[in-house]
This record gives sequence, structure tokens and C-alpha cells, in this order.
Amino acid sequence: MAPLVSDLPSVSQRAGSARTSPVRDLLALTERPAVISFAGGLPAPELFDVDGIRAAYDAVLSSPSVLQYSTSEGDSSLRTLVAAAYTADGVQTSADDLVITTGSQQGLGLLSTVLVDPGDVILVEEPCYLAALQTFALAGARIVAVPHGDDGIDLDALDRAAAVHAPKFFYIVPTFQNPTGRSHDVEARRGIAAIAEHRGFRIVEDEPYRQLRYEGTALPSLAAFAPDHVLSLGSFSKVIAPGLRIGWLRSTGDVRRAATIAKQAADLHTSTIDQAAAAHYLASGRGDAALDRIRTAYAQRRDAMLEALSAHLPAGSAWNAPEGGMFLWVRLPEGADATTALTHALAHDVAFVPGAPFYSGAADPRTLRLSFTTYAPGRIHEGIRRLGVALAG
Amino acid sequence: MAPLVSDLPSVSQRAGSARTSPVRDLLALTERPAVISFAGGLPAPELFDVDGIRAAYDAVLSSPSVLQYSTSEGDSSLRTLVAAAYTADGVQTSADDLVITTGSQQGLGLLSTVLVDPGDVILVEEPCYLAALQTFALAGARIVAVPHGDDGIDLDALDRAAAVHAPKFFYIVPTFQNPTGRSHDVEARRGIAAIAEHRGFRIVEDEPYRQLRYEGTALPSLAAFAPDHVLSLGSFSKVIAPGLRIGWLRSTGDVRRAATIAKQAADLHTSTIDQAAAAHYLASGRGDAALDRIRTAYAQRRDAMLEALSAHLPAGSAWNAPEGGMFLWVRLPEGADATTALTHALAHDVAFVPGAPFYSGAADPRTLRLSFTTYAPGRIHEGIRRLGVALAG
Repeated sequence: MAPLVSDLPSVSQRAGSARTSPVRDLLALTERPAVISFAGGLPAPELFDVDGIRAAYDAVLSSPSVLQYSTSEGDSSLRTLVAAAYTADGVQTSADDLVITTGSQQGLGLLSTVLVDPGDVILVEEPCYLAALQTFALAGARIVAVPHGDDGIDLDALDRAAAVHAPKFFYIVPTFQNPTGRSHDVEARRGIAAIAEHRGFRIVEDEPYRQLRYEGTALPSLAAFAPDHVLSLGSFSKVIAPGLRIGWLRSTGDVRRAATIAKQAADLHTSTIDQAAAAHYLASGRGDAALDRIRTAYAQRRDAMLEALSAHLPAGSAWNAPEGGMFLWVRLPEGADATTALTHALAHDVAFVPGAPFYSGAADPRTLRLSFTTYAPGRIHEGIRRLGVALAG
Repeated sequence: MAPLVSDLPSVSQRAGSARTSPVRDLLALTERPAVISFAGGLPAPELFDVDGIRAAYDAVLSSPSVLQYSTSEGDSSLRTLVAAAYTADGVQTSADDLVITTGSQQGLGLLSTVLVDPGDVILVEEPCYLAALQTFALAGARIVAVPHGDDGIDLDALDRAAAVHAPKFFYIVPTFQNPTGRSHDVEARRGIAAIAEHRGFRIVEDEPYRQLRYEGTALPSLAAFAPDHVLSLGSFSKVIAPGLRIGWLRSTGDVRRAATIAKQAADLHTSTIDQAAAAHYLASGRGDAALDRIRTAYAQRRDAMLEALSAHLPAGSAWNAPEGGMFLWVRLPEGADATTALTHALAHDVAFVPGAPFYSGAADPRTLRLSFTTYAPGRIHEGIRRLGVALAG
């Protein structure tokens, strides 16, 4: 055999076209302790119920069974608890309709595997959750954005896009969206569901923020309008803690069967220990009190940010006031550019995420995302004051 | 809008062509308590170091940081410990070369994403680990099996297959393989590495059983022969416990970068809690004693099975005597069919896995897999006695 060493093949086309999340890359720049960063999307760790969660792990780790392999569908106690929550919420669900996932992020990957062949179209909101775009791109999907005006999603545009592209699904974060904080109202939900039924495509509703409501009335799940057309993703990351990496996919029929196979191929199953601890913690009832504390603190932080924005942002700026979630969306005055503004902001030790990377189509360069959950109100005021100075400078 | 509801699109081509693991489906049949099942591949739960693992979780859960989001690469303490083990084993490795995965199964999926576009060829051993075949199929790969004779892998056939198919990688479980229990000797490893360098393809070496050696000398990692061509997967599932779902991928350069992006898209990161607990447990040193207990018990069980096979299997049967791992491979006498034999075996309350599903090409219908780790020696003798009766009947 010749001693010559041949060149190695390069990475796959789909991997070669993928990029790291710009938000993650940016976070590296904001790690200096002096920086007040509204860029991240992390829950506030001081609100985690460390004692309650620790007690749950200690309780379940008294048995070797939580150290063993488990089923790909996941812990049946946990699925029963999650199913009961859906049913109480008006969406009839059994434990068999659920697959436990390693965070709801994994649900995006499983659904890409199950529903998308390379070249297939996925419709997304404009702007859209970044890590979803990345996962869909790695699956080889073509991504088509549906425009969204100030009054809500453009249903005619959704209908036209569905007619033209025959999408495999429409991906939507209907409540307190990342990055915008916006929610689709009941009429929009009904309209989206009707178009999906009429045109014959699925909806993937991703609801990590649904339980983080600080005021107003809960909005119905899209699954309530079109049960056969809607696949739902949920997560404990924002309501218990993200470190557990526990999410779920609600689906039925063919998709459910295929999702279980895809889950088995992806990682056999999610941590037996984390699943058992989550189920134990939920059953203990401690989660409700902890979630109340989180909601109360986040509501105060949101109010502090809204007040500070009014006091410090330049005339011509606009922003929304979400009834929950972790983010709000700012549009700077005409002529401004949020990416340029970030450079000025970092010079004043404050950070945010420019809106541009969240767009699949033409970006609105004046937009930016602020997370209001990370700091106590006083620090939020100081950060927004710095932002006002940076934007004025 | 017409009230008509359109048909939903079917699942993706790749999902439509996937099947559940025949082994998993079969396990359902063997769950009657009366059945002595050598079919599963589960570690023995009575050997888990429950107290030590529980103490590790309790220690790390004193801080809210283990409940927070983490990096996609994984816990740096854990990666440092794993890297040190590789380096001590003769494969120079830094923490930066490692990505922590949700079990080594996830590593198979990440590498499929990173290296394989639909239609690309992956070479596999014949027979091959089932869940790997499933994952590669879901990635749209074409699977080509390399024949394996009684004396070891057919290196000429590997070279020819590489020349004809230009594979993206050759997937191999070089030590105590699932399903056969066989290991590739030093010369085979050197030969495989040389062909990979000559023909320009990567090797994915999957080593979940490497540390389960009961006698003989440790074999070098394939990475020791061709460091740039070998990607290595490892796991704590067989040496600590599978419920943690902690594995890792060792890679460098382009693949390392792309694997981190693929991991981020797959599930953001593996459970922060499980990773921290695994690192704490390893650093505590308790793992070494626990692994010694596992090795001692499994060696006794293997010996019990070998003795029972000699006593009870019909003349003309043959099997191997692996120096470690969890499985051994039986070939029934000429004319026998292991799938038919399983029906007789279940009637006698004993179970195994027929070899056929592990083959990508033409199966040897006389082969079957036995797991020797599940039961204490007395129960193993009884199970193999029943198997002998079933095969004679």
C-alpha cells in the first residue's frame, strides 16, 4: 500500500453552512463583570428553588432504578403530570401523546428529522427564535419567513406562503415570543389554525414562556383550535430550571411514532435521574410556590425596565410591554442601527442583542432585544440609563 | 376560505423508512418475570454505586449554578478528567478536544449531522450495533457492511469498499463489540488505520465497553495509530450508570467546531446537573472501587455462562469467550435458525436476541447474542439449561 496519506473529506454540506448562534458568540463579549448585560436569555439563578430541587434528587436517588436505562418516551409519572396540565388547560392529552425531550430544543431537532427532508420548506415567524433557525438549517430545510406587522401576523401572507411553498410546518412561539416578547391574540390563533387546516400543513407551537404570565388572561393553545394539525413543545427550563434539560413534545399518530424512533436514535432517552427528579418535584407541590416567586420578581423587573426605558431612551424610540415572558423588543428612532449602537453600548458597559440576526428575510436594523429577567430593579435602571447615554452619544 | 380540511403531509422519507429497534420491540416479549432474559444489554443495577452517586448529586446541588444553562461543549471539569484519561491511555487529548454528549448514542447522531449528507456512504462492521444503523439510516446515509471472517476483519474488503464507495467514515466498536463481544487485535487496528489514511476516510471508534476488561492486555485506541483520522466516542453508561446519559465525542479541527454547533442545535447542552455530578463522582475516586466490583462480578458471570454453554448447548454449537464486555456470540449447529429457536426458547422461559437484525447484508441465521451481565451465576446456569432444552426440543 502506498504510504501517501489522502485528504480527508470535508464536513457535510449542511454542517458547512451552519454557524454558531450569533447570540452565543456575542455573550462572550459581555462577560466582563462591569457590563450590565440585557443580552442573555438566562433565568435568574437566585430564584431557583435549590433546596426543593435538591430534595427531589435526593429522594429519587434512593433507588438504583433511576440510574438504569429507561424508555425512549420517558418517565411515565412525568408524562402523566404534563398530560394532566394540558388537559386542565383545555387540550385533552394522555401520557401516551408525550415524548420527554432533552429540553424543548431537542423537540425542534426531532420534528425536523420526522417531518423534513432536505429542501422541504418550514415557515417561520419574522423575526424568529435563533436556535430554531439553526436547527432547521442543519436539517437542510428551506426557511421562509411570514411577515408580521405592528397589528400582528399577516394572515393573508401566511395563506399565500402556504399555497406557494406547501410547507411541512409553520414554527411559532405564540406566547411571549423570543426575541420580541409579543403574543398572538385569540383571533390570530384561530386564523392560523384555520389556514393550517385549509392548506394542509402542521403547526409547531413552542411554548417555553407560557407559564411566565404576570397579568392578563391566559391565551388558548393553538392545539385547542386544530388538534390534529398542532404539535406542541414545552419545557421546564423557564419554570423550574434549565440545567435539568427537561422538555417535551406533544403529538399524535404517525408523528408520535416517528418521534419516538427519532428520540431513540438521537440519545436513547433523556436522563432517567433528571426525569424522576422533575416528576418528584412537581408532585411535591413545591413548584407552584417557586413559580409564584419567579413571576412576582420578573413582573417587578419588567416594570422597572419599562419605567427606565421611558426615562432614558431617545425620542422616537418605541417598545412593547409584554404581559409576561423574559424579553421586550425595542425599535430605535429612524436612521438608527442597533448593531452600531451595540458598539457604543459596550463602551458604556451595557449590552443587548441587535434584532438583525433573528430575521430570515430583510432585517429591520433599528430593532433590538432586551431581557428583563436577569437583574434586580435598581441594576436594570442603571443599565438602561447607560443605554440612554450610549444612544445619545 | 373553504371549510375543507386538506390532508396533512406524511412524515419525512427518512423517518418513514426508519423502524424501531427490533431488540427494543423484543424486550417487551421478555418482560414476564418467569423469563430469564439474556436479550437485554442493561448493566446490573445491583452493582451501581447508588450511595456514591447520590452523594455526588447532593454535593453539586448545593449551588444554583448547576441548575443554570451551560455551554454546548459541556462541563470543563468533566472534560478535563476525560481528557486526562485519554492522555494516560496514550492518546494526547485536551479538554478542548471533547464535547460532552447525552450518552455516546448522541455522538453517533452528531457525527451523522456533521459528516453525512443524504446518500453519503458509511461503512460498518458486519454484524453491527443496531442503534448505530438506525441513526445512520435516519441521516439518509447509505450503509455498506465490511465482511468479518472468523480470523477478524477482512482488510482487503475494507480497502476495496473504501475505494469503491468513498465513505465518509467507517464505524467500528473495536473492543468487546455489541453484538458479538469480539475485539480487533493490534494488527487489525493498525491495518484499519493505515487504510483510512491511505484512502482518506475517517474512523468513528465507539468504545463503551473498553473499561470492562476482565483479563488480557488493554488494546490501543485506533486514535493512537491515525490521530487525525479517528473520532472517538465514549460513555459512562457501562462504568458508572446509564441513567446519567453522559458520553463524549473526541475530535479535532473542523469536526470539533461543527460538532459543537450540531450539539447546540440538538439540545443546547447535556444536563448541567448530571455533568457536574459525574465530574464530582469521578474526582471523589469512588468510581475506581465501584468499577472493580463491576468487573469482578461480570467476570464471574461470563465464566458461569461459558461453563453452562459447554454443559448444555447441542453439539455443533460454537461461541466466543470475550476478555470483557457484556456479550458473547453463539453460532448454532448447521441447519438451525436462531429466530425460530427464540420461539422455542420463550416457551421454555428463556430469551436471547437472534443475530439477524444486526446484519446489514446477508445475515447468518444461526447466530445469536447472549448478554452475561444481568444475572448472578446460579440464574445464568438455569437459563442456559433451559436454552439447551429448548434447542434440543
